[in-house]
Amino acid sequence: MKISVFRKVHFNAAHRLHNPNWSDEKNKEIFGKCNNPSYHGHNYDLIVKVKGEIDPETGYVIDMKYLKDLIGEHVLERFDHKNLNVDTEEFKNVNPTAENIAVVIWNILRHHIDPAHELSVRLYETPRNFVEYDGE
Amino acid sequence: MKISVFRKVHFNAAHRLHNPNWSDEKNKEIFGKCNNPSYHGHNYDLIVKVKGEIDPETGYVIDMKYLKDLIGEHVLERFDHKNLNVDTEEFKNVNPTAENIAVVIWNILRHHIDPAHELSVRLYETPRNFVEYDGE
Amino acid sequence: MKISVFRKVHFNAAHRLHNPNWSDEKNKEIFGKCNNPSYHGHNYDLIVKVKGEIDPETGYVIDMKYLKDLIGEHVLERFDHKNLNVDTEEFKNVNPTAENIAVVIWNILRHHIDPAHELSVRLYETPRNFVEYDGE
Amino acid sequence: MKISVFRKVHFNAAHRLHNPNWSDEKNKEIFGKCNNPSYHGHNYDLIVKVKGEIDPETGYVIDMKYLKDLIGEHVLERFDHKNLNVDTEEFKNVNPTAENIAVVIWNILRHHIDPAHELSVRLYETPRNFVEYDGE
Amino acid sequence: MKISVFRKVHFNAAHRLHNPNWSDEKNKEIFGKCNNPSYHGHNYDLIVKVKGEIDPETGYVIDMKYLKDLIGEHVLERFDHKNLNVDTEEFKNVNPTAENIAVVIWNILRHHIDPAHELSVRLYETPRNFVEYDGE
Amino acid sequence: MKISVFRKVHFNAAHRLHNPNWSDEKNKEIFGKCNNPSYHGHNYDLIVKVKGEIDPETGYVIDMKYLKDLIGEHVLERFDHKNLNVDTEEFKNVNPTAENIAVVIWNILRHHIDPAHELSVRLYETPRNFVEYDGE
Repeated sequence: MKISVFRKVHFNAAHRLHNPNWSDEKNKEIFGKCNNPSYHGHNYDLIVKVKGEIDPETGYVIDMKYLKDLIGEHVLERFDHKNLNVDTEEFKNVNPTAENIAVVIWNILRHHIDPAHELSVRLYETPRNFVEYDGE
Repeated sequence: MKISVFRKVHFNAAHRLHNPNWSDEKNKEIFGKCNNPSYHGHNYDLIVKVKGEIDPETGYVIDMKYLKDLIGEHVLERFDHKNLNVDTEEFKNVNPTAENIAVVIWNILRHHIDPAHELSVRLYETPRNFVEYDGE
Repeated sequence: MKISVFRKVHFNAAHRLHNPNWSDEKNKEIFGKCNNPSYHGHNYDLIVKVKGEIDPETGYVIDMKYLKDLIGEHVLERFDHKNLNVDTEEFKNVNPTAENIAVVIWNILRHHIDPAHELSVRLYETPRNFVEYDGE
Repeated sequence: MKISVFRKVHFNAAHRLHNPNWSDEKNKEIFGKCNNPSYHGHNYDLIVKVKGEIDPETGYVIDMKYLKDLIGEHVLERFDHKNLNVDTEEFKNVNPTAENIAVVIWNILRHHIDPAHELSVRLYETPRNFVEYDGE
Repeated sequence: MKISVFRKVHFNAAHRLHNPNWSDEKNKEIFGKCNNPSYHGHNYDLIVKVKGEIDPETGYVIDMKYLKDLIGEHVLERFDHKNLNVDTEEFKNVNPTAENIAVVIWNILRHHIDPAHELSVRLYETPRNFVEYDGE
Repeated sequence: MKISVFRKVHFNAAHRLHNPNWSDEKNKEIFGKCNNPSYHGHNYDLIVKVKGEIDPETGYVIDMKYLKDLIGEHVLERFDHKNLNVDTEEFKNVNPTAENIAVVIWNILRHHIDPAHELSVRLYETPRNFVEYDGE
């Protein structure tokens, strides 16, 4: 019997979409305003889902405070109030699209979540554009 | 490795729930206020989900601007600020319940989305009533 | 010492913007898609604000259940799941713009709220378009 | 061809997280502020999902009014404006974590939903902490 | 030239509406389910508004981090995860209606906000019921 | 008889809080993470309020499409997907706090709104931090 628990957090970051193998013209054509060389930014909402069995002692799948602190330490410390392209190792050579940010966050968190637990992340770049990744 | 991307749009429409094979009494009994002969209406929120692999060149599953324009051209042009029962071919003979609207939209979009991509639509008739269809 | 209390309700209705003194061309030019002769519709959110002194016996400005029932009886019964242009007396000769709907609702409720209380209504036609009227 | 329909409702309740087999110190250590002996409370949002085939007569998977009334009778009557630990049979011996509340609600509703229909419940304890259970 | 800044926070609490000068019957009649002797609870959302001139050095009316910490220390520490009737001095003899909670919070914060600044608080008991108090 | 109409729009931008007259240490102390030299960013939500009399011909205070286009041309074109500190004239010498951005937007729009209409702007930097300015 498995149940999913979700924790929602948010962070603010600047980014720019850019493929260094392309000309400026092609970057502008493909990424439009998101290619602005001076960057723009977002309030990212992140929902982390952990699925597993309920511990009969606590009634928890995972302690939400522990999960919140884990996300804080490994995700928010790294990305909150940062320029993703400039200030982070993860996006030095990876284009910070919502898709890629979600995969990077999933890979970071996967190391810190009990392997018996399934993990999924949903990332809202705006309330109208969002992505979801579960490692499969 | 697959990831889902979501685009949320909205449209406003009038509709009426009605089964022409039933008496007025039975229509009123089953559909209640939603059977009002003069129609009522909704702000529909539509979330389109496309699941596929990330293109390593762009970092996108699908260009969100392209997806937005596709939904605009094929869904919003057809249904926004319309009376679903009166102004559309799709609901001339189909009762415009949220379920049927979602299936119709899925079928429309399926023709325009790369067959390698999975497609799902979620339709909010109100914030409290919504449906989801993935073609299975 | 005065405090404001707010009650939020919602209703769904069809409507059409139209000025019968104008030509069809002018109606179409001014009201655009909102002039569709077959109507379109909205999920209207209504927030009613009542400002007054706190009753020391109850700790209430006004009993929220009473206010909810009042709005239900005098506003929702009249407008919910209706075609505003066709099914209501109020909009037979009044164009059902958000502005006019708010004024009509304010006038209806003013008769049923203690004159010692200030009254204001906010009406959301969509989450992006809304109006507010306080009778002044 | 199956489609999911969702109905969202809310209820307000007091609760306290506590394991009677543990010392007060351990309860305090594990459950923190949620262990407050005088209770605290939440506005719970509950989303019930029912998946099945569309009835060709109605265009419905399930009548939303029926589903709403079902949830009202079997869930809201039991838990709304209650102290989960004190006023309910279900949580006399079960710790009312979000996980356990979701499982209890799923089990209650499963008896009243057509076995041909899949059932899932999502419970928001706060907008940032929520759980989902589908019986598997 | 004055501008308003707003900070939104939330807390979870149990409460019960009750007037000790009334019979149980009258309490039950007036307060309904909110009179439940075992309490119920809410996720309260609090929006604090401070209006004043912009400091030309900082571009701030008030440092939002300072305002957040102030609310945390003086409001959240006192009321979050508490039973308002049982655990607090403020509601020992005051009925914890939304109106009274807002007035109590305004009075607490007024002592800690620069007298040159106007202060207003909005308190959501649920998304549908809320109150606002500005001290006038 | 006056009524207020509101139009909500959004834009995404990068920014950095910084006072060039201060040392790096003081900037860091006062502005914290918001002083990050590489910038961070936000999804800004902007609500523009226009108050005036209802035109009896249209039932409008102001045509919402006109208001939307006005905001698009004069605000979104200037600030959407931009770095406020680097890409705009307005914040070359003005610290882009939410307060200052709201004042700048109000001043821009005031030139384009009928002087008979009152104008107010509300700017959300995050759902928890926002400001409001009405020119007084």
